[in-house]
Amino acid sequence: MDIPKKMKAAVLYGFNDVRLVERKVPSPGPEEALVKIEACGVCAGDIKMITRGMLKQPPFGEFIIGHEYAGTVVAVGETIDEFKIGDRVAVEVHKGCGRCKNCLLGKYTVCLNYGNVAKGHRANGFTTNGGFAEYAVNHVNTLHKLTDNISFNEATTVTISGTVLHGIDEAGGFMPGDTIAVLGPGSIGLMCVQVAKALGAGKVILTGTRDDRLQLGKTLGADYVVNIRDENPVEKVQDLTGGLGPDLVLLAAGVENSLQQAIEMTHRGGDIVVLSHFNDPVTIDIGLAVQKGNNIYTVRGEGRMSVHQALALMTQGKVNGEALITHTFPLGEINKAIDTFAERRDGALKVVVNP
Amino acid sequence: MDIPKKMKAAVLYGFNDVRLVERKVPSPGPEEALVKIEACGVCAGDIKMITRGMLKQPPFGEFIIGHEYAGTVVAVGETIDEFKIGDRVAVEVHKGCGRCKNCLLGKYTVCLNYGNVAKGHRANGFTTNGGFAEYAVNHVNTLHKLTDNISFNEATTVTISGTVLHGIDEAGGFMPGDTIAVLGPGSIGLMCVQVAKALGAGKVILTGTRDDRLQLGKTLGADYVVNIRDENPVEKVQDLTGGLGPDLVLLAAGVENSLQQAIEMTHRGGDIVVLSHFNDPVTIDIGLAVQKGNNIYTVRGEGRMSVHQALALMTQGKVNGEALITHTFPLGEINKAIDTFAERRDGALKVVVNP
Amino acid sequence: MDIPKKMKAAVLYGFNDVRLVERKVPSPGPEEALVKIEACGVCAGDIKMITRGMLKQPPFGEFIIGHEYAGTVVAVGETIDEFKIGDRVAVEVHKGCGRCKNCLLGKYTVCLNYGNVAKGHRANGFTTNGGFAEYAVNHVNTLHKLTDNISFNEATTVTISGTVLHGIDEAGGFMPGDTIAVLGPGSIGLMCVQVAKALGAGKVILTGTRDDRLQLGKTLGADYVVNIRDENPVEKVQDLTGGLGPDLVLLAAGVENSLQQAIEMTHRGGDIVVLSHFNDPVTIDIGLAVQKGNNIYTVRGEGRMSVHQALALMTQGKVNGEALITHTFPLGEINKAIDTFAERRDGALKVVVNP
Amino acid sequence: MDIPKKMKAAVLYGFNDVRLVERKVPSPGPEEALVKIEACGVCAGDIKMITRGMLKQPPFGEFIIGHEYAGTVVAVGETIDEFKIGDRVAVEVHKGCGRCKNCLLGKYTVCLNYGNVAKGHRANGFTTNGGFAEYAVNHVNTLHKLTDNISFNEATTVTISGTVLHGIDEAGGFMPGDTIAVLGPGSIGLMCVQVAKALGAGKVILTGTRDDRLQLGKTLGADYVVNIRDENPVEKVQDLTGGLGPDLVLLAAGVENSLQQAIEMTHRGGDIVVLSHFNDPVTIDIGLAVQKGNNIYTVRGEGRMSVHQALALMTQGKVNGEALITHTFPLGEINKAIDTFAERRDGALKVVVNP
Repeated sequence: MDIPKKMKAAVLYGFNDVRLVERKVPSPGPEEALVKIEACGVCAGDIKMITRGMLKQPPFGEFIIGHEYAGTVVAVGETIDEFKIGDRVAVEVHKGCGRCKNCLLGKYTVCLNYGNVAKGHRANGFTTNGGFAEYAVNHVNTLHKLTDNISFNEATTVTISGTVLHGIDEAGGFMPGDTIAVLGPGSIGLMCVQVAKALGAGKVILTGTRDDRLQLGKTLGADYVVNIRDENPVEKVQDLTGGLGPDLVLLAAGVENSLQQAIEMTHRGGDIVVLSHFNDPVTIDIGLAVQKGNNIYTVRGEGRMSVHQALALMTQGKVNGEALITHTFPLGEINKAIDTFAERRDGALKVVVNP
Repeated sequence: MDIPKKMKAAVLYGFNDVRLVERKVPSPGPEEALVKIEACGVCAGDIKMITRGMLKQPPFGEFIIGHEYAGTVVAVGETIDEFKIGDRVAVEVHKGCGRCKNCLLGKYTVCLNYGNVAKGHRANGFTTNGGFAEYAVNHVNTLHKLTDNISFNEATTVTISGTVLHGIDEAGGFMPGDTIAVLGPGSIGLMCVQVAKALGAGKVILTGTRDDRLQLGKTLGADYVVNIRDENPVEKVQDLTGGLGPDLVLLAAGVENSLQQAIEMTHRGGDIVVLSHFNDPVTIDIGLAVQKGNNIYTVRGEGRMSVHQALALMTQGKVNGEALITHTFPLGEINKAIDTFAERRDGALKVVVNP
Repeated sequence: MDIPKKMKAAVLYGFNDVRLVERKVPSPGPEEALVKIEACGVCAGDIKMITRGMLKQPPFGEFIIGHEYAGTVVAVGETIDEFKIGDRVAVEVHKGCGRCKNCLLGKYTVCLNYGNVAKGHRANGFTTNGGFAEYAVNHVNTLHKLTDNISFNEATTVTISGTVLHGIDEAGGFMPGDTIAVLGPGSIGLMCVQVAKALGAGKVILTGTRDDRLQLGKTLGADYVVNIRDENPVEKVQDLTGGLGPDLVLLAAGVENSLQQAIEMTHRGGDIVVLSHFNDPVTIDIGLAVQKGNNIYTVRGEGRMSVHQALALMTQGKVNGEALITHTFPLGEINKAIDTFAERRDGALKVVVNP
Repeated sequence: MDIPKKMKAAVLYGFNDVRLVERKVPSPGPEEALVKIEACGVCAGDIKMITRGMLKQPPFGEFIIGHEYAGTVVAVGETIDEFKIGDRVAVEVHKGCGRCKNCLLGKYTVCLNYGNVAKGHRANGFTTNGGFAEYAVNHVNTLHKLTDNISFNEATTVTISGTVLHGIDEAGGFMPGDTIAVLGPGSIGLMCVQVAKALGAGKVILTGTRDDRLQLGKTLGADYVVNIRDENPVEKVQDLTGGLGPDLVLLAAGVENSLQQAIEMTHRGGDIVVLSHFNDPVTIDIGLAVQKGNNIYTVRGEGRMSVHQALALMTQGKVNGEALITHTFPLGEINKAIDTFAERRDGALKVVVNP
């Protein structure tokens, strides 16, 4: 395949200063592949890095952002036989160091050498270069093959469903037939609805503030939706569950009172999974959680092969990533893409950039 | 055995109004045994019921308090062959309904019929009569045999070590050699130290505000103690763990900032178990927990056969319950016992009443 | 509802001597309901009891067989509010004693008081009366509500899918996208195919000796079928999995060489779940399993709320029980029903009796 | 530190043909350290490779055997800061490829690229050079620091206790107070006894054929020993457990009838862990295991950080490795060491070679 020497890439030069510049196309080292990027989604994590910065973020002027991408393998490094040139692939973010205690136990997303590139850790688009570019190099551990029925655009959403699957797994899973409440109808919450249904959940109840998003949630499988501007979510969810409360609460709304609602809502022994980022501290009645025996699980992204799982559900048509994509832009309009997402222009939900 | 018709019992007649009165000695029904009580510990839960009340608490004037007790089987009901007259026993609090989803899955401590006596749930000393009395009836599920080397007084502490064991179990256990921080040197915290060491923990670090308690913690196995009046607990604990933070934090201090400290202290993927009751809400940076992938587990007491486990460790001499007992009183001095505990008179840690 | 005093019931009078006789309609005690039976499936377990007997089987002349039944609640005992008269229900077999260590931990299917009716254990149709009758009494723990879209006939198959779900759960579940081999296309094996697909399995490969059953397996979701009379199953399955072998083998063929095939077939660290009964010992290369790190899990039936899960999947249309039912008979033809099943007359797969 | 260019090493030149020859001292690459070996144990695995060969064994004339070793770090490769020159260390055998599904999930001992050196897998002493030599290179993942109170000789036994800990972990652990049967009083079985006691087991029963080994087992913590030449092990073990059978059977005797005994011995729902290698197939009544709901777990060695755990227990004085060592030889007498172990000369249990 004909690989150019130079490529266009969106580099972060300072807070709120993303520039499309020319960069060298990287070469895959051992255990790596070079991916020609076809699509890369804009995520809340990108906005955080652009506007406020995140832990272990690379220096301004060097760092190519973007972590939800998909494309085609165009070159492979030494020892790679898992992938060949021409394979269509999606990515996951985290490649652990492989040598800390957490990595050795399979928890590579919470690698104790997070951000330590010398020791082999990479979080593409967070601590190493990402996917708002024409090409990117990925370690073999972060690549997953796409079946023909998944488009590149849809494939950019697998880290979202992968996050949901990883969160559910952390909580020990749930049983088919269990009742699940999803707080927040953003892209994570809407994936929660789909993944819960795909795994056999019984009643799924989605809460939020915007009716259009709640209606989309219904289309994607929610049995009930609750607009928390109109109704008390705790009371309503308990009503809808015969007074008992859900078995599991998936928290996808990083706002002040959502965790407290989750604690109040679920039954004794019920589990809570926090899937969203929070900008501010929250106040909770932890004593109530203790009395009820509720555990609070957290995940910051996909992990433990959950992208592999997410792609399987997508291949089987059980999870629909396309449904979340409201806007697409060429790479040349990267700043417009970012603004559209950040400001939720025209009801923007998931915004995808196509290099 | 000669069982009298009447007994003395400490009945709650109103907030802060415990009276020693005469009651009928109860008879064991099917699956039950009558226990002649030899010792019953005063617990923070008792104080809460006496001063403020708890969920599903029985009416004033009827309710015999006390849930940490031990004694001798003096009569057995139908079908009991697990115990015979003369057996020395300790108790656990919770007998689940056996028919709700949680009970069927073995989570009887978070029974969905909590407080529903008609459906078979009992939490002795919380929702049904307890152990500040000469006799009590117990369901077979809540009785455990004592070996000869455990005194009745020591046996009153098994629900404490049982709580710790249940909490550790909820968090999926830890590995021998793991580093553990224990926040709070009360009776729960001091049991955390002992249980952690008994199960093979590596470094155990105990934090608190009172030097005498911290010193007792050292005697009971803590490798390091940190007086948080003198040192920043987060910094100090990270120092003592090579900058990494502990694998597991056992939170035994129900105060404003302890949960936040726990989140800051542990490493990526580290677990937190909340073992204490809280009177007030707390403010936490849940977003930090999400970024680090920390899970927060809670238990309200013993469960999943953890009292059986606790007694085994006690029999083996690996956990010392006697070390926590600072005061004993006869049943006639029940109010003095309660006050001594509640006001921590003379450094009171664990106070035991001997009927 | 009008409940008669007498009913017809199929009683086992001796080996191979099932008689339809008149019996008293039983009354529900506390925690029990009386079910008017609409359908009851014939199972391999019935044949074993009829021809050879099983552990803890009640005396000849007393014992009403049949354990895969469904019907309508017509009376409820004390404390029952989970069900009301008129509810359509399916059953699970095992009600544990609720007081042994296994039951307390939620493993009621392996109750240590198995067969001890005095202590509260019941396995309907195995150790206590079952469902080849017009009425049966069930403990509340063994009843599950049917949604309207499940017929009584289909509902008789929930213990089969419940067994599969329990087996998968024992093995710690599998990940969506995993490759699964199912050995044996009987009713258990065909349910394995359906449940695996319902939970998101990737490739499902079904092996067996009869082409019509294998074809049915394909209709129900198997991606590949292998007739082991024509092809070496180990080689073929490894071929179909890129030389690696499946992640999980569900063994539903209680024959001499199936377990050895399972060990040879799966990859390092792959799991095997044995779901079928065996009449004879088998010879296996356990040393090979050790070298490869394979675990062998077993279940004897449903458990840990798996019937609840099975019904959820059936309600959602993800598992089709009707597809397995080849024959139905009225209760008057119970012996013809038994013979049809036992001799696999006319390709009999699942045979249902309608009282 | 002064490192010579050449070293003595025991190389396998053919079956039963181990020669002490001169080899180049290897250099540590990135992520590696060079260890000056102080002690290396002889293991049944060595005998198997010497006499019959094992899967993925390197060619004759090249391969340095020995996998239970300990020594001192004398050089470190790039990026190593976990260890420094002078550190005393023990090793574990397996370094997974880090990129297959099993490794990514933390199951590096069952790496799907087992034996594939190009992809990064190493099993020192099995598929790559081992420790019957003066020096060996180890990946950082396979090194563990020794505390001062562990001698190099004792440290050679950590893979044994690590194997036991990994096996127990695979089975989901056991509860303090549980009853455990250990079949076979070899070095694995004797470690089973110690580890079980260290983790709080209640009754531990050891079975075997040699009285001296059984007596050693008693010294190391077994509560009961059963000579199976004198008594029926199944009956005796059930007797000793009140007719119930043990909660867990640790199988450390790779002989014809041990697995069948384990199945017969344990109670409903009881677990079996196979820890020994087998030379021949075995015949078992798998149908009995199904009826009783017994799972059979296997491990081929240490894994999931179990060597880290084993060292912690050894540091704490809870597991005694020295007690198993009966003979030591200098490296010059490697063949005498091998023969002493293989033929169990003079009651040889654990034989250690000191280069």
